[in-house]
Amino acid sequence: MSIDDADAGLPDGWLERLYAPRAVAVVGASDDIRLPGGRLLQYLLNYGYAGRVYPVNPNRAEVQGRPAYKSLTELPERVDIAVVLVSAAASVGVLEQCAALGIPAALFGNSGFAETGAEGAALQEKIARIAREGGIRLVGPNTNGIIDSGNGFAATFSPVLDQKGLALRDGPVAIVSQSGAVGAAMYYDGQRSGLAVGRLYNSGNEIGVTLESVVDALLDSPRFDTVLCYVEGLRRPQRFIEAARKARRLGKRIVLLKSGVTAAGARAAAAHTASLAGEDRVYDGVLRELGVARARGYTHLLDLGRVLAAYPRPYGRAVSILSMSGGIGIMLTDALEKAGMRLAAFDANVMAGLEPLLPAFLGVHNPLDVSGGPFHHLDRLRAMLQLFDRNPDSDVTIVAVGSFERRQMEIAEVLADEARGLDKPLFVIWFGGGDAAMRFLNGRDVPCFPDAERLVQAVVPGLRGDAIRPVAPDDVEPDTAAARALLAAARAGGRKVVDEVGGKQVLRAYGIDVVSERVVDSAAAARRALEGLRLPVVAKLRSDALVHKARAGGVRLGLTSIESACAAVEDLLATARRLGLADADVVLQEQVQAGVELLLGARRDATFGMVVTLGIGGVLTEAWDDVQVRLAGGDLDVHDMLARLAHQSLLDGSGGRPRVDADALAPTVRRFARLVRDLGDDIEAIDVNPVIVHDAARAPTAVDTVIFLRDA
Amino acid sequence: MSIDDADAGLPDGWLERLYAPRAVAVVGASDDIRLPGGRLLQYLLNYGYAGRVYPVNPNRAEVQGRPAYKSLTELPERVDIAVVLVSAAASVGVLEQCAALGIPAALFGNSGFAETGAEGAALQEKIARIAREGGIRLVGPNTNGIIDSGNGFAATFSPVLDQKGLALRDGPVAIVSQSGAVGAAMYYDGQRSGLAVGRLYNSGNEIGVTLESVVDALLDSPRFDTVLCYVEGLRRPQRFIEAARKARRLGKRIVLLKSGVTAAGARAAAAHTASLAGEDRVYDGVLRELGVARARGYTHLLDLGRVLAAYPRPYGRAVSILSMSGGIGIMLTDALEKAGMRLAAFDANVMAGLEPLLPAFLGVHNPLDVSGGPFHHLDRLRAMLQLFDRNPDSDVTIVAVGSFERRQMEIAEVLADEARGLDKPLFVIWFGGGDAAMRFLNGRDVPCFPDAERLVQAVVPGLRGDAIRPVAPDDVEPDTAAARALLAAARAGGRKVVDEVGGKQVLRAYGIDVVSERVVDSAAAARRALEGLRLPVVAKLRSDALVHKARAGGVRLGLTSIESACAAVEDLLATARRLGLADADVVLQEQVQAGVELLLGARRDATFGMVVTLGIGGVLTEAWDDVQVRLAGGDLDVHDMLARLAHQSLLDGSGGRPRVDADALAPTVRRFARLVRDLGDDIEAIDVNPVIVHDAARAPTAVDTVIFLRDA
Repeated sequence: MSIDDADAGLPDGWLERLYAPRAVAVVGASDDIRLPGGRLLQYLLNYGYAGRVYPVNPNRAEVQGRPAYKSLTELPERVDIAVVLVSAAASVGVLEQCAALGIPAALFGNSGFAETGAEGAALQEKIARIAREGGIRLVGPNTNGIIDSGNGFAATFSPVLDQKGLALRDGPVAIVSQSGAVGAAMYYDGQRSGLAVGRLYNSGNEIGVTLESVVDALLDSPRFDTVLCYVEGLRRPQRFIEAARKARRLGKRIVLLKSGVTAAGARAAAAHTASLAGEDRVYDGVLRELGVARARGYTHLLDLGRVLAAYPRPYGRAVSILSMSGGIGIMLTDALEKAGMRLAAFDANVMAGLEPLLPAFLGVHNPLDVSGGPFHHLDRLRAMLQLFDRNPDSDVTIVAVGSFERRQMEIAEVLADEARGLDKPLFVIWFGGGDAAMRFLNGRDVPCFPDAERLVQAVVPGLRGDAIRPVAPDDVEPDTAAARALLAAARAGGRKVVDEVGGKQVLRAYGIDVVSERVVDSAAAARRALEGLRLPVVAKLRSDALVHKARAGGVRLGLTSIESACAAVEDLLATARRLGLADADVVLQEQVQAGVELLLGARRDATFGMVVTLGIGGVLTEAWDDVQVRLAGGDLDVHDMLARLAHQSLLDGSGGRPRVDADALAPTVRRFARLVRDLGDDIEAIDVNPVIVHDAARAPTAVDTVIFLRDA
Repeated sequence: MSIDDADAGLPDGWLERLYAPRAVAVVGASDDIRLPGGRLLQYLLNYGYAGRVYPVNPNRAEVQGRPAYKSLTELPERVDIAVVLVSAAASVGVLEQCAALGIPAALFGNSGFAETGAEGAALQEKIARIAREGGIRLVGPNTNGIIDSGNGFAATFSPVLDQKGLALRDGPVAIVSQSGAVGAAMYYDGQRSGLAVGRLYNSGNEIGVTLESVVDALLDSPRFDTVLCYVEGLRRPQRFIEAARKARRLGKRIVLLKSGVTAAGARAAAAHTASLAGEDRVYDGVLRELGVARARGYTHLLDLGRVLAAYPRPYGRAVSILSMSGGIGIMLTDALEKAGMRLAAFDANVMAGLEPLLPAFLGVHNPLDVSGGPFHHLDRLRAMLQLFDRNPDSDVTIVAVGSFERRQMEIAEVLADEARGLDKPLFVIWFGGGDAAMRFLNGRDVPCFPDAERLVQAVVPGLRGDAIRPVAPDDVEPDTAAARALLAAARAGGRKVVDEVGGKQVLRAYGIDVVSERVVDSAAAARRALEGLRLPVVAKLRSDALVHKARAGGVRLGLTSIESACAAVEDLLATARRLGLADADVVLQEQVQAGVELLLGARRDATFGMVVTLGIGGVLTEAWDDVQVRLAGGDLDVHDMLARLAHQSLLDGSGGRPRVDADALAPTVRRFARLVRDLGDDIEAIDVNPVIVHDAARAPTAVDTVIFLRDA
């Protein structure tokens, strides 16, 4: 059974019911809180869950002061979920009981399934089948549990809850994690630092319910607007794409931390979960296009959650800084500039308003170095924040304060109170102590960080300009039939590759401008062909057996006359005869004027299917290694793809090169993506390199291409 | 008076005496702890300082329960330091009293000097003169103070110490900061997180004592082995270079955080301290060469201090990971790989030793995902750490643990205890709570971080391979006189620039291989010259008036015969006559075989003086923008410079290009640096671009160059 089948038919409202059972059975409940069955039961009893809890343990009359039951069949009612913490082997029988009793959900906290080898995989197949046939929602197996902060349903055995005095705070942020330890730790680190994490779902081996299904269902809940995901490998990437698009429609945000993005990390991930790791930059491009914020690590994921939950609406790039320390102001300015943000210009109102609030010796400029004054006279602090907020050039205010250990709460309370009245986002850097102030501010949706770098890394994904601009569909209708015929002909000829001549015909069928060329097999044919070509031309020997044309002396450049071109053709054909290339002919190609050489490519990604690549092309393609990847079926914001290439000075029109204009390039990219979508079933990969970009008035020209056919 | 004069003659032991006065006067002492003179006095009395403290306040008989004095002259003894917290204007008279009384040091906490404008600058000049003439060590002005954790001399008014229950912990780390707020906050954040910061020095406006002098004196103290610096602009960069070299000799470490590294940040820094901001990549290269670890932000500076203080000896790149969470193990592996580190191979001993310590279903591989087991059975944890430590392939052990809130100290104590017996560095990631454990471990010199990314960023600067390899001096004796004569001739001719022909003669005088060329002014001269050149050649029109040769049609490439070369010369001279270029002649140059095009450059940096640049050259120099900068007078590790370029695939011999071999390139770079050192007084900048690198057997060839002369 494929995973797609397993959670395809989840009924409406399934996740809400999962998190709010009226009654729970804990199979494997224990008095010993060093054991999972002891801890999970203790948390269910201690964190305010109001439903009925039934310990199941055949060897005990009582567990943790509650009457224990020998098995599920002896319970006084049909529970809504069975938490199963017995051995993998024993759990099969328990799940059969669930099926027989009509229990709609089971949480399998035990390990010993696919993650342990072939035997475990067989057990996993077995429980998957029982769950499917019994209509049971299966959480896990190999999960340490789930939590709902709203009703205290803390169905986890992570030791992180094993402590006194923790009050679970409900809120609009949910965490879904493919690692139980990571998920539980994040849940706790979020809670204790003021981030209101309303739910945790640790998905385990995901045989019944995938991370993607949980994300999708959380988006449907009005309780949640921000979903934080820790992912080792997406099992249902298409469903994830759909969920991301739903999030954008709803104005909700998904944040994703993908681990296993290096070769070594991917190997480590495979050892851990047996899921295939996607390539780092594919994730980068695809998530960017989907509007999913990408977290760079554990702490960054929580930081992004903090910011996007506090300020779900995108904001601009101009920042007003009020800093107690000139030094922190400088570091913050550095970090903002590196991230593409800028200092707001103080307008006349700000200048005039600040004048009476500052000692004469402090200059009035952004970043505003206020020294300690406004933090001793908090009415001045309030007035300054209001001045910044009313400045039309300013989008965001950042206050940097710290070292007031004794007075931290007094200052934090003023900041939180003032923030509620401001129109624009307020962020805080608290340096030198301030743990209580930071926790308090974060808990009041004023995101607060201990240094400039962390703040800026958390602020950037919320920027307005960071949203992508989908392009309008193209109005040129492709000749799909002609393109398909070309591919079919190549396949019929036993080829796995369509060469540059056929490849360019395919591109042309999709409205992409290609270099003019003719194939000839004699000097006489060349002479006729040259009537239709503009000089100078290039002559290239073509043969299936000839891999490196240039090295074999098979390329002649700069042929400026018909005579020299014909002579070159004759010469090349003679070379072919000498080399014994029976299939050889010659491609005569107009020499394309120099411009900026880009590459356009497509390939089948193991996770996301066909993806499109746009980047720096030409002879140094590998050396530059500067490309952006997007879904072939995505929005393809060409402005954004170009803007994110590293080597901007190659694109900006400097050095006598034409400027690469996104609008002028967009139709080519769009038509190429259409080609990839239409013909994707037949194609494994395409390289178009170089695509030469001229000035904006002329469409870019595809000069060389190769199409790799998919194995039939 | 220049700053160089001001602290040039600091007597031996001055800093030790500054931090350990037998008696202190606080001028401007107050009962009100909202005022600097109230807070500083309170800290001096409360943090265990055992010397005598004299409040000076003409309006009070008593301050904070101590008898107050009307002025310094009324004190019962000559104090070792006067802390001055009165207005800038009033402070001049106080300093005059210090001079009259022979008080050897003064700490000026007041602002109102150069940072406030012209009037303040004049006051600053005045106190600088008084201090110099009176032989007074002047701390500041405009500093919030200094602290010695060893004797409780907390001479600061930063509110960060305004709290109960903080015990200052002495240790081998010192902080020197050009921002008082940053320095004080770091001191506190270090102390409270287990980093033993023995001293804080906030240098203020640095008229008497610069940051560089303090760093130098701290290195002389046996108490300190790690010095953390926050720098907005180095006032005495040459002295900093000397201090860095001293640190390397002594096996001590300097860590530097430079702010104002972006254009906007530099502007903000100028507003704050009026110091000139150095260019980011100059700092990058120079610090790298000096062995100074560079911090990327506030938190990173403390993190580096933690690691380098715990493990002063460099360690290798192979890491063994023991993780409670597979997920954290994967993220850590990703972060290590991105940073150029690797997973150690478990040897047979590790494999055999782990077998009985792990449940059968957990695989034995690195990263080792142990789940919770060894953290419940701590003897197993100890055994595993010892196995890793004895593995010859492993250099470093990282333990990732977390979420054990209730049991955190029990686990942390075992880790700290075990670490003392290990030969190799142990680092810890503590995720999910663990504040007390992290503080404890950091306090026991087991560096501990809340996530993988922060840990790896802190670990990298301690790597063994990260040390630079100085090259041996060159054995080729340059013809300095000839080179000087060429520069003098150009200058005598009224030129500000030495063109490529003269420039290459200068390079040749230093043993650098240059392209063979001849200057000719007629076809007949060309014919004679061509006897000494190998075909094909290039002909270039040369004239002072001709900036863009190629655009003016002044360049002819690929001249394969003597006839075509002579014709080209004639043609170019005709062009010159047409353009009215009276000074024109033609350079005939051998065409250099294609290779990898590098650039070699030098220029006068505003902070560090002459620096040398090595990077990717050729037509796309600006687009690549990929260079490394080092001191011209530095160690010039060419391996390191090449290894740190971004575009490695251009250098590694792929794509049919020659491999760029550091050993083969080193003599050229070394000779070039010698040239820059010898002739630096006459030269503002040099560009050599391209330098074409062939295979290792042949010296690189300088093809084009230009020397900008320094204004006389």
